[in-house]
Amino acid sequence: MNIISKDAKIGQNVIIRDNCTIEENVTIGDNCYIDSNTIIRSGTKIGENGFIGANCIIGEYEMDFCIDRKKHNHKLIIGDNILIRSGSIIYTESYIGDNFQTGHQVTIREKTVIGDNVSVGTLSDIQGNCRIGSYVRMHSNVHVGQLSEIDSFVWIFPYVVLTNDPTPPSNNFVGVHIHPFAIVATGAIIMPGLDLGQDCLIGAGAIVTKSVVSYAVAIGNPAKCISDVRRTKNKITGVPAYPWREHFSNYMPWNGVGFHKWYDSLTLEQKKKYGIENIEE
Amino acid sequence: MNIISKDAKIGQNVIIRDNCTIEENVTIGDNCYIDSNTIIRSGTKIGENGFIGANCIIGEYEMDFCIDRKKHNHKLIIGDNILIRSGSIIYTESYIGDNFQTGHQVTIREKTVIGDNVSVGTLSDIQGNCRIGSYVRMHSNVHVGQLSEIDSFVWIFPYVVLTNDPTPPSNNFVGVHIHPFAIVATGAIIMPGLDLGQDCLIGAGAIVTKSVVSYAVAIGNPAKCISDVRRTKNKITGVPAYPWREHFSNYMPWNGVGFHKWYDSLTLEQKKKYGIENIEE
Amino acid sequence: MNIISKDAKIGQNVIIRDNCTIEENVTIGDNCYIDSNTIIRSGTKIGENGFIGANCIIGEYEMDFCIDRKKHNHKLIIGDNILIRSGSIIYTESYIGDNFQTGHQVTIREKTVIGDNVSVGTLSDIQGNCRIGSYVRMHSNVHVGQLSEIDSFVWIFPYVVLTNDPTPPSNNFVGVHIHPFAIVATGAIIMPGLDLGQDCLIGAGAIVTKSVVSYAVAIGNPAKCISDVRRTKNKITGVPAYPWREHFSNYMPWNGVGFHKWYDSLTLEQKKKYGIENIEE
Repeated sequence: MNIISKDAKIGQNVIIRDNCTIEENVTIGDNCYIDSNTIIRSGTKIGENGFIGANCIIGEYEMDFCIDRKKHNHKLIIGDNILIRSGSIIYTESYIGDNFQTGHQVTIREKTVIGDNVSVGTLSDIQGNCRIGSYVRMHSNVHVGQLSEIDSFVWIFPYVVLTNDPTPPSNNFVGVHIHPFAIVATGAIIMPGLDLGQDCLIGAGAIVTKSVVSYAVAIGNPAKCISDVRRTKNKITGVPAYPWREHFSNYMPWNGVGFHKWYDSLTLEQKKKYGIENIEE
Repeated sequence: MNIISKDAKIGQNVIIRDNCTIEENVTIGDNCYIDSNTIIRSGTKIGENGFIGANCIIGEYEMDFCIDRKKHNHKLIIGDNILIRSGSIIYTESYIGDNFQTGHQVTIREKTVIGDNVSVGTLSDIQGNCRIGSYVRMHSNVHVGQLSEIDSFVWIFPYVVLTNDPTPPSNNFVGVHIHPFAIVATGAIIMPGLDLGQDCLIGAGAIVTKSVVSYAVAIGNPAKCISDVRRTKNKITGVPAYPWREHFSNYMPWNGVGFHKWYDSLTLEQKKKYGIENIEE
Repeated sequence: MNIISKDAKIGQNVIIRDNCTIEENVTIGDNCYIDSNTIIRSGTKIGENGFIGANCIIGEYEMDFCIDRKKHNHKLIIGDNILIRSGSIIYTESYIGDNFQTGHQVTIREKTVIGDNVSVGTLSDIQGNCRIGSYVRMHSNVHVGQLSEIDSFVWIFPYVVLTNDPTPPSNNFVGVHIHPFAIVATGAIIMPGLDLGQDCLIGAGAIVTKSVVSYAVAIGNPAKCISDVRRTKNKITGVPAYPWREHFSNYMPWNGVGFHKWYDSLTLEQKKKYGIENIEE
């Protein structure tokens, strides 16, 4: 049996399965599907056509509630056409754009700002107080430390960690900044406060202790820049593979058009929104 | 209160705890135990004597359901005597053999084929479209990328990742193939398309960038073959430790008999089933 | 609707949200808050003022129950003022002190002994049969193997693994011992049976294959001791950063007093309780 507050605003054609809790001051857009056992807490607003899997907690309580057990009027805004897979937990005081997708058992803490068309893999752990652009794709089990800044069109592969404390334990946190089109491969660990440049490629298992310039390939422990990514060829097909935006378009807005044609069609305003008004060649 | 479809086929002496959902077209064998809040979706067939912990989702929806919210007649077949611990999620279109065990919060995506007597640790993330033999033992937090092939009698320790994209991001996936009796120690990352040979030992934290031959010990970043595993002694007892199948038999079919006696007792058919008809000495 | 055994002893001002199960022989202290869908199994005793998030399983069944489906009279004792975040699973036969905190989706297996004021991050996986002192702080996704011993005032950062099998697979487990005030940074893997000395600093991504002496800084794969931690300065402020206990006091009992003043105020008994009666200078 569902427990649905009579003050919740629930759109048309919304399906709510079994044993769900929808608290007061929740807004759910038209055509959403809320699977069983999911809890949507007060202050949450979800756009149209969303799918939220079973056993999720959307609008999870922050520490203030755990201390005084009183509602604190925090908000969580989530866009249209989202797909949050089962077992995921998203806190209040965050903003998430349209077409967002998660895997299972994802955690997103408070004060996370996420653009449109972002995907976050199973077991990823976004620690909050961070900024993620649009068209960012994180695979499974990515850890995003507080104060991280991830620009648009960044790829992050499994078990990558973005750290934030240069002399642990301390109070002097400083986040990692990953610039557009960068790729961070499986298991890389990025030290606090570093910049990963536009279109750079961080190799699997790299322990990155210095900032990496645009287009560099960095590998090893500690990581060293060994090459320019534009020299790397696709190991299967033998054709140049980078910058990847010229060779790959799945999930991307230039799909079917090609990167350059799409890019040239953007207004300066649109380029600025993505942070790609000055692409370094 | 449980929600049990009247079209579900539920065997004798099955215990279903509280707040469970058992959908139509589910078959549950005799003597199974289904713990609280667990959802078993349509198309799932579970053998006899199984134990499924609380908060599991068995037969999870694939993307097609999330898109059109219609059931797609996918199947999930799970054998006898299984133990799936609480919080785990298993998709449809997979086949899982007898005596299967998982830890907690495990995810197994669609099109995964798993043999008998396999164990998958807490938080492991099997991405689907992959093949796992029999008597494979994965510890916690193992990530199995799509297209991986794991032969029988392989051991994989915590935080190992089997990758599949040589030039990320791309459409040219190629899986890792781990041969029988290989051991992959904690935190190793295996690059796409590599072979890990029979009885090889990949050391903790190795970043494996080239295929590894049978019986080799590979360590480091990037990994180098430094030794033959047969030279390695048990650090506690001082006796030779490898090939491990001659010194260790817990969970294995040769327990109480010894590997060679067991092996010699197999028919060629049985050896082929395990992929061990030609053991390289 | 909650399912609450009439034999459960529930204190005053306890709030139990929706769809919870509280089994017989459970004791819950005054002023606790139990969020929705949480299961508290028989044998669990929780002190006063605790907060347990949604979808938790406290007092999870051990293997004996999965085999014979009978209750085995195991106990789980948890102290006062705890905060267990949603999705966490804690087994019986463990003892957890006061002021304990977890993140989400944490697993704590049987026979774990944890002191007071310990914090365990999201997705951490404590494998049981281990000992953790007081004022230990583990960040997200830490894996504590069986037989580990973690002394008081230790910091462990994300994706650290404490291993326990020197020649896997084997029956000869041997745990890691981490001494007081040691710091293990992100992604380090510690080989079985090693000692990490008092106040040592294990760098991010280090693969530690030999014991590390007090105050040493160890980095790399394999890890080498490269420095004395007391030479390391805070990268932001430029002032000496270690031993951290002289420069940092958040969450610590010397907060507002300073380490030395606090230490000198302790009785020998109290120092022994924390295992810090002989601090190596």
